[in-house]
Amino acid sequence: MSANTIFSDNFLLQTNTASRLYHGYAKSLPIIDYHNHLPQQQIAENKQFDNITQVWLYGDHYKWRAMRALGITENKITGSASDTEKFMAWATCLPKTVRNPLFHWSHMELQNPFGIHQYLNAQTASSIYETCNQQLQQANFSTVGLLQQFRVELVGTTDDPCDDLVFHQQIALGNSGIKVLPSFRPDKIFNIGHPEAFMAYLHQLENVTGITVQSFAQLLEALAQRVQYFHLHGCRIADHGLAQMPANFQLSSAEESEFANFVNQRGTTPFSNPSAFAGAVLLALCKMYHAQNWVQQFHLGAIRNTNTRLLQLLGADAGVDSIGDDRQANALAAFLNALDKTNQLAKTILYNLNPAYNDVFATMCGNFQDGETVGKIQFGSGWWFLDQKDGIEKQLDSLSNMGILSTFVGMTTDSRSFLSYSRHDYFRRIVCNIFGNEMEAGLLPNDELWIGEIVQNICYFNAKKYF
Amino acid sequence: MSANTIFSDNFLLQTNTASRLYHGYAKSLPIIDYHNHLPQQQIAENKQFDNITQVWLYGDHYKWRAMRALGITENKITGSASDTEKFMAWATCLPKTVRNPLFHWSHMELQNPFGIHQYLNAQTASSIYETCNQQLQQANFSTVGLLQQFRVELVGTTDDPCDDLVFHQQIALGNSGIKVLPSFRPDKIFNIGHPEAFMAYLHQLENVTGITVQSFAQLLEALAQRVQYFHLHGCRIADHGLAQMPANFQLSSAEESEFANFVNQRGTTPFSNPSAFAGAVLLALCKMYHAQNWVQQFHLGAIRNTNTRLLQLLGADAGVDSIGDDRQANALAAFLNALDKTNQLAKTILYNLNPAYNDVFATMCGNFQDGETVGKIQFGSGWWFLDQKDGIEKQLDSLSNMGILSTFVGMTTDSRSFLSYSRHDYFRRIVCNIFGNEMEAGLLPNDELWIGEIVQNICYFNAKKYF
Amino acid sequence: MSANTIFSDNFLLQTNTASRLYHGYAKSLPIIDYHNHLPQQQIAENKQFDNITQVWLYGDHYKWRAMRALGITENKITGSASDTEKFMAWATCLPKTVRNPLFHWSHMELQNPFGIHQYLNAQTASSIYETCNQQLQQANFSTVGLLQQFRVELVGTTDDPCDDLVFHQQIALGNSGIKVLPSFRPDKIFNIGHPEAFMAYLHQLENVTGITVQSFAQLLEALAQRVQYFHLHGCRIADHGLAQMPANFQLSSAEESEFANFVNQRGTTPFSNPSAFAGAVLLALCKMYHAQNWVQQFHLGAIRNTNTRLLQLLGADAGVDSIGDDRQANALAAFLNALDKTNQLAKTILYNLNPAYNDVFATMCGNFQDGETVGKIQFGSGWWFLDQKDGIEKQLDSLSNMGILSTFVGMTTDSRSFLSYSRHDYFRRIVCNIFGNEMEAGLLPNDELWIGEIVQNICYFNAKKYF
Repeated sequence: MSANTIFSDNFLLQTNTASRLYHGYAKSLPIIDYHNHLPQQQIAENKQFDNITQVWLYGDHYKWRAMRALGITENKITGSASDTEKFMAWATCLPKTVRNPLFHWSHMELQNPFGIHQYLNAQTASSIYETCNQQLQQANFSTVGLLQQFRVELVGTTDDPCDDLVFHQQIALGNSGIKVLPSFRPDKIFNIGHPEAFMAYLHQLENVTGITVQSFAQLLEALAQRVQYFHLHGCRIADHGLAQMPANFQLSSAEESEFANFVNQRGTTPFSNPSAFAGAVLLALCKMYHAQNWVQQFHLGAIRNTNTRLLQLLGADAGVDSIGDDRQANALAAFLNALDKTNQLAKTILYNLNPAYNDVFATMCGNFQDGETVGKIQFGSGWWFLDQKDGIEKQLDSLSNMGILSTFVGMTTDSRSFLSYSRHDYFRRIVCNIFGNEMEAGLLPNDELWIGEIVQNICYFNAKKYF
Repeated sequence: MSANTIFSDNFLLQTNTASRLYHGYAKSLPIIDYHNHLPQQQIAENKQFDNITQVWLYGDHYKWRAMRALGITENKITGSASDTEKFMAWATCLPKTVRNPLFHWSHMELQNPFGIHQYLNAQTASSIYETCNQQLQQANFSTVGLLQQFRVELVGTTDDPCDDLVFHQQIALGNSGIKVLPSFRPDKIFNIGHPEAFMAYLHQLENVTGITVQSFAQLLEALAQRVQYFHLHGCRIADHGLAQMPANFQLSSAEESEFANFVNQRGTTPFSNPSAFAGAVLLALCKMYHAQNWVQQFHLGAIRNTNTRLLQLLGADAGVDSIGDDRQANALAAFLNALDKTNQLAKTILYNLNPAYNDVFATMCGNFQDGETVGKIQFGSGWWFLDQKDGIEKQLDSLSNMGILSTFVGMTTDSRSFLSYSRHDYFRRIVCNIFGNEMEAGLLPNDELWIGEIVQNICYFNAKKYF
Repeated sequence: MSANTIFSDNFLLQTNTASRLYHGYAKSLPIIDYHNHLPQQQIAENKQFDNITQVWLYGDHYKWRAMRALGITENKITGSASDTEKFMAWATCLPKTVRNPLFHWSHMELQNPFGIHQYLNAQTASSIYETCNQQLQQANFSTVGLLQQFRVELVGTTDDPCDDLVFHQQIALGNSGIKVLPSFRPDKIFNIGHPEAFMAYLHQLENVTGITVQSFAQLLEALAQRVQYFHLHGCRIADHGLAQMPANFQLSSAEESEFANFVNQRGTTPFSNPSAFAGAVLLALCKMYHAQNWVQQFHLGAIRNTNTRLLQLLGADAGVDSIGDDRQANALAAFLNALDKTNQLAKTILYNLNPAYNDVFATMCGNFQDGETVGKIQFGSGWWFLDQKDGIEKQLDSLSNMGILSTFVGMTTDSRSFLSYSRHDYFRRIVCNIFGNEMEAGLLPNDELWIGEIVQNICYFNAKKYF
């Protein structure tokens, strides 16, 4: 770490072989970011940001959590303080985040794309703020400009089934050279346990499809129409956020009748078996995905909105979610088997939020590989709290030990920010570091062509083939 | 490791930077041992030990377990064998404990304060026994003398709410220069599932408060009186040992009536919902702690007294406890949220005994940071079975990756022995080693002032501010 | 890694001390493989294999899983493709398994006993196939020849209680110099939840014992007779594969009557409490083992046969099993305590399949050490998916930190293949590497005699004494 740069060219690369793999094979590959939460409207409008606070701190619940732990009042985090004040507050916090991924991420983001090679702190904050804000006025710092700078080839956004995808259409007509494809995320339809919210959402679904839902079959018909609509608009991926897979995914005929009554009475009587309902809807959806040859993703293991005070103040995604410890194995096995039995198991990515379950996930994938699609069932990359050096390494190690690392589709940011693409670089360095170190230690063939090809597959080509 | 000493000055310090951090920043700081089980009477009386067996082996269930696994009969562990025989038995075991923390701890304890630089084994046992026993007759090897040698500034003992704290008063009047403060540990009051023991304890509580408990409200009144009593005697910390947080913490009015009947009938009919009772009492207590601005501690995840034979022979804390796998996340979130909702969440330290749950704990803390108190919700240091190099490193890594390490209040011994203060030294070396290594590897700023200050905060100043 | 060999002499040995420990203490010790699934008939008949596919790929569900993930059709894995085609298919896969234990294992197995020092891949496949097949025709490559080459001293097979052990008798009469002893694995008798299969098995038990089972007592009588039969044929070890220990292990007298009716009606009415039945049978068996001074093994934590399609195609052990996440601690404690209370707890080895539970297992063992038998309760070696470098290291670390590593009985292959003995070498290298590295790092005494003896005990002598 020289006086001139925070991170050297060999940041995270502990051996010469690791360095050669990174610089020779991984560094320059384009990025396929198949799952994130980028706001499609901002891409369609090629938005230009007023200042770095808007693109860096707005909506970043990782930073919010750190600031709260460091005694910053909510006003300067998510409240009415000015963008400048918020940036200054964050600048006082960052030096105290050492060993948290925010410390690496944030400085990597300042270095690329902004070319800042200083630590951000109370002393450097003003000048860094000015420098960044000036650059943000340039064309190559618009949303599309940033994606191009990072060589992003594909963006997979996250979209509600009721969304009209108008911004995706608009983007497709543009000439950015970046594919921005929707993903089908139907989480709200599982939520029959909250009748009011569920009925409001169902109403939305009825409006957008023109189908009046008076039976379970009609519900599935409406969803099938939206799957079809998404497919026509380029969608090839579904996604689901669940604490755990539904253990029960069959509705009895009595429960189907109950559902008809439930909707006819507009949710005034609670539905008796909300988890079986969710399971049955999900199973039906998964069969639709398979029919369309989509990839289905499951993000499992979060417990959400634990802090009522902040939920009420800020809504969901306020930084008050954490890692759950619900058991995963049996329900996951039963659900995947139910699809596999009838040969309706789509390509699947399983993301796990609790590292204690990494090996459960990694071995589960192996049970449903079908000998046709290479790496059909994927153990997804380190996600959310696990998107850091240790978390990434643990996921790679479990996948390596229990599965076939060389088939891995690799990193995706899952981010809400246009600056997060450094995380692909972070991931690539970690992958090269692991391989390079083990080559030098005599644990892997000391053959850079052999291993370099595998590195390139993990960082880019596997995803290209898979999606 | 030279021929002259077992542990070099740079024991556990793998890089020069680590060594400089330790020797320059951490080593000489005083010790705030905010949670332990030291016998306050022995401090008050400034007890002098007859021999090292008394201060080293009596009551040390870690060593007992090791000895049982190595085929030593109970008689030489906890039985009627002489102190000399017990020491000799332990001396034959210690060489076989390599890689267990006992091997490091025990030799560190012999080195400091006794100045022994030999391995303890069957050959060296006699001479080491004599050397230690002679020193134990010196004034600076009394209980207070030992605490002073170790530069202990504050001792947080563990006390029953019914305790009169007379020894604490006596110590406070002394001039040792060491603050010895009680902690409020009300575990016995949760134990309504064992009616006989519960009623006996309730009787004790009635006696000490003068309140006849005939209702749930009166129970809380009695407890509130004891909280107040403890506060007046310097207590600022509560502690609780639970397998997991209560999932239910509300008593219905029917259950409150049932409780009144239960006590009136002296526990002859079992209470129908013991876990809700425990939860309701705990929630009420936590609100009292908040009102007093105390710190509340929760030690979660042990399963205790698994071996009936040894429990009956020796009572609790016989070395037959182990790591549990009860789920933690949901109940923990609900309980903390119940307090936070009404703005009655006190400063909190969550200790976890099962490393598989480290990330659950580390992320949970982040949900309830309030933007006022720095590091308000703490993920507590590696505890009990986890108080070893790997366990400490794992706790530090989870805390780093998921939270803000720089706000950590650091180590506490949780020990029953006056010789355990080497564990603070062990912890400090591990902290410095982690930081120093990552500085040299380019993962952290190579700035010793910056990181040195954080090290000092973790080892001493954060605790000083927090308590 | 020189051009001439894949793995150097110091494969896995990172320091000079590690190398000296391995070459000086561990390498040449004989092998006690106390638990595996070798087919006793093939030993008795001293089978000679036609080709390497038969001894290497037949029955190896680890390789099958890898091939499925890499897109090989089932036909070339377990189907009707020729042995040559299957070998070629595997050869195309192996280069893509880097970082999976199969990559190390497979090349170690080619190196020893076949003397192949090339990587297996599509290019080298034909010549390697020929070389191996030629060698397999030699006398020292028969089943017994292979065991002798690997210096195997004892083989513990896995046998059904109804087995007549005729092959074991035959082997005992031979002069191979290798002890091949049966293990009693009564898993099928727990399976009352599947009445048809249970009744069929019970019928087999009745036939082999001559006891008509019309009551629970008669069932135990029949089992006791088989325990006795096994004991007379050299069996000293029992084994059990369970998702978790039974939480309930007492049958009420009503349930005992129900069992009598159940068998009399030939299982036409389901038994109401299958888990209590399983628990009660297991507890009774464990008392018989204790009376015979056997070692009892428990393999806990697998979920099996998750993929119905492949189960129906291939039967059990098809490579569609994975790591479960059932809780273990409370049931394990209760069961062991039930035996310990009456002083009927036999020597016990607990194998854990989910590394997240390693510390639960390691601490649980400590609760039931009895101060008589050294290392009486063993935390078993890394098993199945955990039989790889990380998995072995994690098991050793948990055992070290929470127990007494020096008493460990060490490695066993648990394998179905005569080529798997390289795994003992793998294990020994890992053990030496850990000790050697920590000696050089100043964490352990730099005393090769001291540590070398411990290494030898772990690799061989502890097992010799224990069994």
